[in-house]
Amino acid sequence: MGKRLTKRNEDYSKWYNELVVGADLAENSGVRGCMVIKPYGFAIWEKMQAELDRMFKETGHENAYFPLFIPKSYLSKEASHVEGFAKECAVVTHYRLKNAEDGSGIIVDPDAKLEEELIVRPTSETIIWDTYRRWIQSYRDLPLLINQWANVVRWEMRTRLFLRTAEFLWQEGHTAHATEPEAIEEAEKIMNLYADFAENHMAMPVIKGLKTESERFAGAVETYCIEGMMQDGKALQAGTSHFLGQNFAKAFDVKFATKEGKQEYVWATSWGVSTRLVGALIMTHSDDNGLVLPPKLAPIQVVIIPIYKGLEQLDAISEKIKPLVKELRSKGISVKFDNRDTHKPGFKFNEYELKGVPVRLAVGQRDLENGTYEVARRDTLTKEVVPMDGVVAKIEFLLEDIQKNIYQKARDFRDTHITKVDTYEEFKTILEEKGGFISAHWDGTLETENRIKDETKATIRCIPIDDEREAGLCMVTGKRSERRVLFAKAY
Amino acid sequence: MGKRLTKRNEDYSKWYNELVVGADLAENSGVRGCMVIKPYGFAIWEKMQAELDRMFKETGHENAYFPLFIPKSYLSKEASHVEGFAKECAVVTHYRLKNAEDGSGIIVDPDAKLEEELIVRPTSETIIWDTYRRWIQSYRDLPLLINQWANVVRWEMRTRLFLRTAEFLWQEGHTAHATEPEAIEEAEKIMNLYADFAENHMAMPVIKGLKTESERFAGAVETYCIEGMMQDGKALQAGTSHFLGQNFAKAFDVKFATKEGKQEYVWATSWGVSTRLVGALIMTHSDDNGLVLPPKLAPIQVVIIPIYKGLEQLDAISEKIKPLVKELRSKGISVKFDNRDTHKPGFKFNEYELKGVPVRLAVGQRDLENGTYEVARRDTLTKEVVPMDGVVAKIEFLLEDIQKNIYQKARDFRDTHITKVDTYEEFKTILEEKGGFISAHWDGTLETENRIKDETKATIRCIPIDDEREAGLCMVTGKRSERRVLFAKAY
Ligand SMILES: [Zn+2]
Ligand SMILES: [Zn+2]
Repeated sequence: MGKRLTKRNEDYSKWYNELVVGADLAENSGVRGCMVIKPYGFAIWEKMQAELDRMFKETGHENAYFPLFIPKSYLSKEASHVEGFAKECAVVTHYRLKNAEDGSGIIVDPDAKLEEELIVRPTSETIIWDTYRRWIQSYRDLPLLINQWANVVRWEMRTRLFLRTAEFLWQEGHTAHATEPEAIEEAEKIMNLYADFAENHMAMPVIKGLKTESERFAGAVETYCIEGMMQDGKALQAGTSHFLGQNFAKAFDVKFATKEGKQEYVWATSWGVSTRLVGALIMTHSDDNGLVLPPKLAPIQVVIIPIYKGLEQLDAISEKIKPLVKELRSKGISVKFDNRDTHKPGFKFNEYELKGVPVRLAVGQRDLENGTYEVARRDTLTKEVVPMDGVVAKIEFLLEDIQKNIYQKARDFRDTHITKVDTYEEFKTILEEKGGFISAHWDGTLETENRIKDETKATIRCIPIDDEREAGLCMVTGKRSERRVLFAKAY
Repeated sequence: MGKRLTKRNEDYSKWYNELVVGADLAENSGVRGCMVIKPYGFAIWEKMQAELDRMFKETGHENAYFPLFIPKSYLSKEASHVEGFAKECAVVTHYRLKNAEDGSGIIVDPDAKLEEELIVRPTSETIIWDTYRRWIQSYRDLPLLINQWANVVRWEMRTRLFLRTAEFLWQEGHTAHATEPEAIEEAEKIMNLYADFAENHMAMPVIKGLKTESERFAGAVETYCIEGMMQDGKALQAGTSHFLGQNFAKAFDVKFATKEGKQEYVWATSWGVSTRLVGALIMTHSDDNGLVLPPKLAPIQVVIIPIYKGLEQLDAISEKIKPLVKELRSKGISVKFDNRDTHKPGFKFNEYELKGVPVRLAVGQRDLENGTYEVARRDTLTKEVVPMDGVVAKIEFLLEDIQKNIYQKARDFRDTHITKVDTYEEFKTILEEKGGFISAHWDGTLETENRIKDETKATIRCIPIDDEREAGLCMVTGKRSERRVLFAKAY
């Protein structure tokens, strides 16, 4: 505390790292690439989980739990799937430790080698489809709509808190359907659900689209995604929903009897969002003073700070505050009354600013005399004096207004940083000088996509779904293009 | 469905396994010792989690998340701790797979060997105390009251669904305190919280006590526990709370500056309950017809089954039911209206009996004419005809009454199966013929404890805390004993 953050326009990446640690969200652990999510950061994730879980259940999904470990042979069954994950697998090979005979300490017991190695799940399609083979016999067993909240491990070489960690927390939905259109409808429904959550809870505008073949999930026929834009103009993939076709049903031999008595392979989807969303939340709204949190996801929505000399004044303030706290809580608003006598008000102001608490009330002796509170909002950093009588209504208004305001601000930024370009020269210039998303024509080939990536580091974030289609010519090769796609540098 | 369960008095263990699978709670997976928790079983665990989480937060605890992996050197730092867990550790040794050069398939890449092996956490004291060293500098940082919901792995050789699995889900609390009495108070507070949860939510009576030295958690100074009695008279340890002294603070060098400026080691506790509780719940209440669930933890509290011929009758019933479902839900009661036309009412009756739904409503054409419902309760298997007007009050009464009734039934069973004995002969006879808990004098030595265990398979479940102390003579050696302790065979 007290130490100021690096400014965003000096070094965005440094600002991010300092903020994550300074606001007590997370930190690196002694285990390579694995983070510790601290209570304040975890409370944000819990709020995300609660809302997403409600949305999943409302759309007919149930939670279940599948094993952490995946036998190597399972992972190998779907060819493109194992291809995609083999390079980043944590592998369990032994099941016992022992004391070294030479007294040098604890070692892995060579006699306790597993017959078949187990992979710590990087995602659970294979273990789940091995299970679904037992659960699905008939059309009556479909659709099967299941979600799991779990930890997964992908051995990434370069990690960053929340954005890319070897272990992360996520939810993964895995559904099974009798028909192709029904599975596609599910994949699209979830993409829309994610977009709804991102926009209305995280206050983060997103663009819905399809991934190109090279960016698809390993094993998917089609990958739907939502893409957000961070304050540095880079894209962040915030959620993906995959139509898996019959790939996993075939790999794990999952067939069902149709109404007509035929045996057919089952159609599948899978979809997930992770603790990465916390990183997206931070980089969408926060400023040089610290976090800015949308009220709907803020662990503390209102903080009340007493300004006093001596215990007598603190007592008087506490008495006054008690019914206010009670009333706010009865309305479902989370309030913290910070009466610590170990820290000065100024210190507390900075702390809650850094932690992004949306609304701050300050109350001192003069406020008691005047029947007022000083009310400050985190998003605009403005404050005003409010009569005690109207303070609850004021707070309710502010919580809604801040939610709207930071969405609109992020939306305006995003919209002014999507640039249509028609030549590759312009593309490179915009990418370097302005950044953001670039809407351009592309000839649909992997070759051109890779060339652009190699030369500029920009990737195709998605083929937008809500765009009007407009034919044209590829900015690189001049070949025909059916529609513009969105390019950006990405997290 | 349809197939009857083995009766409890024929083969209790077989009855349990059939019930867990038959009621769709869980099943074995393709991974040795790891279970799949199916949606209905997971919904019970979610209800347990929600209530426990509320209780933890109400007592000042916060959630956080620590890495899945523990470097081998961390686990080795506390001598008795590693001693206790070394024999059942899943060990990650590599971080990549590759295609075998001889084309034989996917193999572990020998070039991707970790410098230091990682253990999949069997419990998290070591990684957490390594973290606490960074978080704790001064008495102002204490107490630190943290909980984590997580999966853990202990490579058990003999596993049983919910009761003993290689991977299980649990919560683990880890707290840090400035003084020894405060840490002991925390450990006792959590034991009482667990007992409250077991008795008032699971409707499972428990005995609170201390473990003997040989049954203590590896690394603990004192282990508090709650012990339940299953219907076969065997004990089940349902939760433990450990006072860890300064063992982990010393192993990980965690000191704090006192108010007076001295450097002192921190005092610790840790505590946990797991998915094992689902097994305990099953074995406390269920009968030869299936599950009996306490209403407070039942995923479906009320099921409504229409009895009809033709769509017209079903429509009439559905119209009548709609406002009832709405009213029950508005009171926070979970209701399912099972209008599937693929199954007959009799099939549905059996299904919800097997699944332990506390209250069942049936409604047919005659009920519509008479303005009645048939209401059945799962615990007593009795039913009665109730006027529609009074049905909501009736249901509310039944949900409370079933909760009380199954607790009292379990309590009566438990109380009549605690036997005081004074000779070792009598001990053996009671253990074999009646079973249950045996209250006897013991001389306090490991030698005698081991002898009893070897000869009878009974262990000391706990030194009860709420007992009146009564001195006597050890039933085996005749040496002095300060108090009776509780013996039983255990899960
Ligand atoms: Zn700009
Ligand atoms: Zn008996």
